[in-house]
Amino acid sequence: MRQRWETGRVEAFSDGVFAIAITLLVLDLNVDPDAFGDLLDGLSDQWPSFVAYVTSFLTIGGVWLQHHSLFTSLRFVDSVMMRLNLVLLLVASFLPFPTELAADAITYGRDAERVGIALYGITLLTITALLAVMWRYAARHDDLHHDGISDQVAREAERRPLWLIAVYLAGTLAGALLAPRVAAFTFLAIAVISIVSARGDRDVTAADTPSG
Amino acid sequence: MRQRWETGRVEAFSDGVFAIAITLLVLDLNVDPDAFGDLLDGLSDQWPSFVAYVTSFLTIGGVWLQHHSLFTSLRFVDSVMMRLNLVLLLVASFLPFPTELAADAITYGRDAERVGIALYGITLLTITALLAVMWRYAARHDDLHHDGISDQVAREAERRPLWLIAVYLAGTLAGALLAPRVAAFTFLAIAVISIVSARGDRDVTAADTPSG
Amino acid sequence: MRQRWETGRVEAFSDGVFAIAITLLVLDLNVDPDAFGDLLDGLSDQWPSFVAYVTSFLTIGGVWLQHHSLFTSLRFVDSVMMRLNLVLLLVASFLPFPTELAADAITYGRDAERVGIALYGITLLTITALLAVMWRYAARHDDLHHDGISDQVAREAERRPLWLIAVYLAGTLAGALLAPRVAAFTFLAIAVISIVSARGDRDVTAADTPSG
Amino acid sequence: MRQRWETGRVEAFSDGVFAIAITLLVLDLNVDPDAFGDLLDGLSDQWPSFVAYVTSFLTIGGVWLQHHSLFTSLRFVDSVMMRLNLVLLLVASFLPFPTELAADAITYGRDAERVGIALYGITLLTITALLAVMWRYAARHDDLHHDGISDQVAREAERRPLWLIAVYLAGTLAGALLAPRVAAFTFLAIAVISIVSARGDRDVTAADTPSG
Repeated sequence: MRQRWETGRVEAFSDGVFAIAITLLVLDLNVDPDAFGDLLDGLSDQWPSFVAYVTSFLTIGGVWLQHHSLFTSLRFVDSVMMRLNLVLLLVASFLPFPTELAADAITYGRDAERVGIALYGITLLTITALLAVMWRYAARHDDLHHDGISDQVAREAERRPLWLIAVYLAGTLAGALLAPRVAAFTFLAIAVISIVSARGDRDVTAADTPSG
Repeated sequence: MRQRWETGRVEAFSDGVFAIAITLLVLDLNVDPDAFGDLLDGLSDQWPSFVAYVTSFLTIGGVWLQHHSLFTSLRFVDSVMMRLNLVLLLVASFLPFPTELAADAITYGRDAERVGIALYGITLLTITALLAVMWRYAARHDDLHHDGISDQVAREAERRPLWLIAVYLAGTLAGALLAPRVAAFTFLAIAVISIVSARGDRDVTAADTPSG
Repeated sequence: MRQRWETGRVEAFSDGVFAIAITLLVLDLNVDPDAFGDLLDGLSDQWPSFVAYVTSFLTIGGVWLQHHSLFTSLRFVDSVMMRLNLVLLLVASFLPFPTELAADAITYGRDAERVGIALYGITLLTITALLAVMWRYAARHDDLHHDGISDQVAREAERRPLWLIAVYLAGTLAGALLAPRVAAFTFLAIAVISIVSARGDRDVTAADTPSG
Repeated sequence: MRQRWETGRVEAFSDGVFAIAITLLVLDLNVDPDAFGDLLDGLSDQWPSFVAYVTSFLTIGGVWLQHHSLFTSLRFVDSVMMRLNLVLLLVASFLPFPTELAADAITYGRDAERVGIALYGITLLTITALLAVMWRYAARHDDLHHDGISDQVAREAERRPLWLIAVYLAGTLAGALLAPRVAAFTFLAIAVISIVSARGDRDVTAADTPSG
């Protein structure tokens, strides 16, 4: 027999993990005691940390919005979905580590920079790929939904994260091989775009109607 | 088509972030191992950290109360409101960093003190300005509310944070240019006042009636 | 006009702060890198940290249980109650700091030990006193309750924390002047007792009936 | 009179603690500043930290799933259950400490490795034993349940964690005496298995029907 869970407590637990991961990012921000002599300079030297903070904050914010949309359309999760969600939470709450690593690596030197940005990109790529798999799985299992889900919405849901995966892959490769800093700002731009283009949890069936 | 979200999960996520940010402040409190020789002295030397802890705690507490009032009067958030809220959370969960920085800077010396207090003031200013924008936006979009909102309340909501912005701006400038410690205690006083004068979530339409 | 808030979101926010404060305590546990040579010894040297961890965990657990009982009997909080609750949260989320301080001080020497245990005791004393004030205030304001509260329960609620305050006061003084380690274990014993004697949230009006 | 609490707020508080403990694990991950010279190497040297992170994350995830199943079948907790739950939360939120300790110990040397893995195993063993006691207690107290619980389910609930306790005991002993690294991977394997075999919160009375 297939196992099923109500979404309520899964959603609350996931929200808790996202809220904590997003708030722990601030612990990655530090100013070296030596920098207090000229604090304004000390702070500007930390620009990679601030860029990384904003990028990771907005990325988790965007993931939370997507997660929210997905779970609003679901009534149950089955054991596949439950495990996918746990792995998503694992990778999302891991994000503060590559965030700090990438920011520190940028101030260190070219080789470290490449490795740091690549690990950061791989983490973002994994998060996006997991969300895509979850959407796809949800779109193929009618019995998890309140009233089933329309084919159109299902396809929409499946198609959207694919370009994101492609961009993260390109950014990760570019960061590892060519231009780590360009990759870093690409990740920030994607995070901003993903929040700006987030869809609400109302009128889901009308999601294909052009905006305006 | 305009995107909309139910306020429930947005409110729960925001509460989570506020609760974590407010509790992480304690991690900024440390006593130097050297200070254990005369611990009472070592603790009194840390007074800027304690003042900063209480100020930031009460500030986030006051923001939470305002956020609570705002969301009680809303039924939906649209995508503008959602993004404003995410930026508010970003700045609020950033607060532990300037809190620690300002406290450390005060024990370091005059120049660091100015920069630390100014960054702290700018953060508080940004939080207050964002809340003002959110109130203002809410007051102009009837369709986000349960039953619409009266013109009087709308104006009240718009006017109140403006003096706060002015005071934070004055405090930040004073802190940066003249008297960082006076500015620090001004921020504490504002936080206390904002909590003492917080309005409940009942009787919203009667908010103009004088207290008593 | 008197301000009032529904208890729901206040309770959820308070629970969040308690849950985070209780979980952050683990960050106070560290083993010195030098101790890895003989790790079993290094761990036993850390016994004050473990005692402090358990004491603070059970204290916050007990506070949460009391807070839970109090709020179950309330329907609204007014602005006095809201401020008392914020101050309670401030002191409760401050607890990880004196916890670490007291544990470190015990391994350092007699004078530091006295100051550390005294600050820890003062914090516990303040928390208990605040809870007592909140109970007392709640017991005198019928309009905050679902159906009013019986005189008997009100008196019970007022009397109970008083002996706790007396014991914490005695423990703090003893810790500061005579026997810090005895005081530390007294605080642990109180925490255990407060959890063992916690009352459920059902049958509130029958709370004076002897157990069994 | 027996004390009882509604499960709602107990469950929310527990979820909060699990969510925070699981997310704090990331703070155990660090890269030594010296390792930035060859960051890829520096990261691979950290493999015990990553294995420990995944193991502890999945272990807490599995505990949360079990806790969730248990509480779904309950309507009340009495004071015994409340205290068992607090002790479970105490040990679960302690887990980040032995996680970091075990990971650091593995890179240090054979003796430290044994102590670290043994403490880690003891912590996991305690968590599993507490969950077993809680299931057992729940299965014997009909008045805590919504509609009582069938004998079959009760026995199932009691039997399942016993082999887990046996495996953790074996792993801990093996880790302490013979092969710490084998024990570490055993703990990871158990965590994976416990999540893969987790049962949903629906169809509880049909839990004995073979899957498929």
